[in-house]
Amino acid sequence: MKNNDVSIIGAGLIGSLLGIYLSKKGLNVSIYEKRPDLREQQYAPAGRSINMALSDRGWKALDKIGLRELVEPYVIPMYGRRIHDEHGATTFLSYGKENQAIYSISRGKFNHVLVDEAEKHGTKMCFSHICEEISIADTTLKVVLPDGTKEDRETDVVIGADGAYSSLRDAMQRQTRLNYKQEYISHGYKELTIPATKEGEFVMDPNALHIWPRGEFMLIALPNPDHSFTCTLFLPFEGEKVCFDKINDEADLESVFRTYFDDAFSLMPDLAKEYFDNPTSSLINVECYPWLANKSMLIGDACHAMVPFFGQGMNCGFEDCFILDGLIEKYGTTSWELVFEKFQKVRKSDTDAISEMARNNFTEMRDSVANPRFIIRKKIEARLHELYPTEWIPLYTMVTFSDMKYEDAYAQGRLQDEVMDKVMEDPMILQNWQQVDYAAIISQIETARMV
Amino acid sequence: MKNNDVSIIGAGLIGSLLGIYLSKKGLNVSIYEKRPDLREQQYAPAGRSINMALSDRGWKALDKIGLRELVEPYVIPMYGRRIHDEHGATTFLSYGKENQAIYSISRGKFNHVLVDEAEKHGTKMCFSHICEEISIADTTLKVVLPDGTKEDRETDVVIGADGAYSSLRDAMQRQTRLNYKQEYISHGYKELTIPATKEGEFVMDPNALHIWPRGEFMLIALPNPDHSFTCTLFLPFEGEKVCFDKINDEADLESVFRTYFDDAFSLMPDLAKEYFDNPTSSLINVECYPWLANKSMLIGDACHAMVPFFGQGMNCGFEDCFILDGLIEKYGTTSWELVFEKFQKVRKSDTDAISEMARNNFTEMRDSVANPRFIIRKKIEARLHELYPTEWIPLYTMVTFSDMKYEDAYAQGRLQDEVMDKVMEDPMILQNWQQVDYAAIISQIETARMV
Repeated sequence: MKNNDVSIIGAGLIGSLLGIYLSKKGLNVSIYEKRPDLREQQYAPAGRSINMALSDRGWKALDKIGLRELVEPYVIPMYGRRIHDEHGATTFLSYGKENQAIYSISRGKFNHVLVDEAEKHGTKMCFSHICEEISIADTTLKVVLPDGTKEDRETDVVIGADGAYSSLRDAMQRQTRLNYKQEYISHGYKELTIPATKEGEFVMDPNALHIWPRGEFMLIALPNPDHSFTCTLFLPFEGEKVCFDKINDEADLESVFRTYFDDAFSLMPDLAKEYFDNPTSSLINVECYPWLANKSMLIGDACHAMVPFFGQGMNCGFEDCFILDGLIEKYGTTSWELVFEKFQKVRKSDTDAISEMARNNFTEMRDSVANPRFIIRKKIEARLHELYPTEWIPLYTMVTFSDMKYEDAYAQGRLQDEVMDKVMEDPMILQNWQQVDYAAIISQIETARMV
Repeated sequence: MKNNDVSIIGAGLIGSLLGIYLSKKGLNVSIYEKRPDLREQQYAPAGRSINMALSDRGWKALDKIGLRELVEPYVIPMYGRRIHDEHGATTFLSYGKENQAIYSISRGKFNHVLVDEAEKHGTKMCFSHICEEISIADTTLKVVLPDGTKEDRETDVVIGADGAYSSLRDAMQRQTRLNYKQEYISHGYKELTIPATKEGEFVMDPNALHIWPRGEFMLIALPNPDHSFTCTLFLPFEGEKVCFDKINDEADLESVFRTYFDDAFSLMPDLAKEYFDNPTSSLINVECYPWLANKSMLIGDACHAMVPFFGQGMNCGFEDCFILDGLIEKYGTTSWELVFEKFQKVRKSDTDAISEMARNNFTEMRDSVANPRFIIRKKIEARLHELYPTEWIPLYTMVTFSDMKYEDAYAQGRLQDEVMDKVMEDPMILQNWQQVDYAAIISQIETARMV
């Protein structure tokens, strides 16, 4: 059988999941990963976040190949945001309806499970294999093996699931007319820990994503199965006010934490050590087009790395796998070029949309959620959704708890925002929000949709 | 003396000119060029255009270091565009006033002259030296010497004048938070020749840039000192109509040329051989920011490669050298970071502006110039400039025959366009253009400028 040899670059979450999908189709799948086998060592994140938030699109991709039960033991549901103010008081804001949650899961553990599963289905895992050169014209990889020797490997197709700094994309950039854009945001992040109590208990509500929104910066925390929380501090790299460049010793650090995150500070015994030991990582947005060249294609972060503020990077990459799989079912593998062409056509506008929503959501997380008007606005939207479940679906719900196209979700979200902007113009809205004329709002959005 | 060692990557036009500038300042300048010495071999353009159009900004940069006389023998003035229609009839459209011209010069010859001059002023030319790695943090180059051995070279600063595919920019992209964008246009180009007559004479008017505008594509020709013309054919790579992908044999080629460029075709005896031997090159636009990282900086195409349709790529790069030189005079070299910081601050908005104008000008060259309305419009603008030399300066003149900031030229050009759009709304304008109320137009543009 021809067209059967698939080489995937990258054994991260997307590469491993794609390995399972394609192996189950009976294809010969090899995954080349430059890092050593993550199962044989302590997982080193190297500039990637430790916790992921799995949501509906991700679950749907797992469900299609029966992986839900395998993954479920490792997740912790988070039903909403718990917002911490400067004085330690908290407010809870649901993500959706009563049982709707996003699920905290450790990247390392999740990756481990997926790699095991890929191997089980026949994917050949090649760890510590570096793809030094990729020839797009010949679909050939020059691979550096673990012992340092080099080998040329021919293959029918190459799929780059190798993340924001993709080597396949790099090869495409050198060998083809690739349009490419990378943008760093002004903020970086650093991961820190809130440990469990001596008795091994959670020190805060485990079923929430905790946020300390402080305008230009923020701290967040996600629960872990060992009852600790992984915190992520987002600060500007440099600037006049609070920023990474201005925290140079323990006194600076303590001053920032005591001023802005006092309740968290008291729960972080290892703060100073972690802060000065852990790397400060940057946040990149990547867009490119086309995603394919000859019989090579990019998937996941390799073609659409986004900032993490909508929690959709992994979910979007999993949805990529789901959609690619559907296209293979429809068109077969006799013409990978056709499958790849269809894939980028159907997917590009959606990944552009979620990338933009992710950038927009940073302001919401670090700033707006601290604003009482914003909270009321969210409550009005939640009530609208309760009363008119199909006529009004909050943007967060469309993105996180549905599989509608990101592009459509974004367009609907903007229409709804215009209507809500008007609703919020009422100077008494904070007092009267429960008496809002919900039917009138629905009639406004329906008019807006007809235009 | 510290801060004295300057390493320039790339011995192209910009790198060589910068070498002269900096050597004349008494700095120790080394230029690393991966290609062999261009003076020892037939010049191979390798995807770069053969002819350049030198204009005022370029001359100004040459004048500052007394190079005009050295260059003048190699240039041919072009006073305007000679537009060829499908039937071989031509129209001449001046670029500016009577003696204003842009100057055709061979890239190879020009580069040769500049390299000689750089050496004369003490620049150390390192041809066939490949900068395999550049460490931004240490300002160190790992250089592969012509014999294949490798050497680490420490230096005080590195300046990347290594073009659209800059290796210094590549290093910055890997080692720093560089925002970067590359975009290819849908068209490519191929270089062809119209030779001199047997008697060694030009076969067309040598003092013009010849254009065969055909809507979606075009052919142009620039004169050479040996009395030949270098032609450049711009076509879409692929598409439904005339494109590179659809010209597969001599019959296809002849059919396209006989239909669209018949007068040129009769002057191109070697067309088929050249067409199928010469490469089809692509056209890239590059933007990035910041241009500096630590003590490394980009200049010229390395940070702002543009499409060639305004004839400003080289002129803009020369102006970069002129401006950088002025900043070194003002701030000295004790703080290169300060000089580099000032340079990118003053220059970025200008290079963005000329890049955009260059993209816009492609439509003008391949399409608008064939339109009688466009020609009348240009004539009205020329007349306005004659009557009101400081109140109305056509965009082409501001860009090509002045040294005003590109950003300001672009802004003025847009204002003037709005006014001219209204003037052209007169349905009788083609008949009545000589009776236009010029004073009223000037009063409109002055009002627009005050808003």
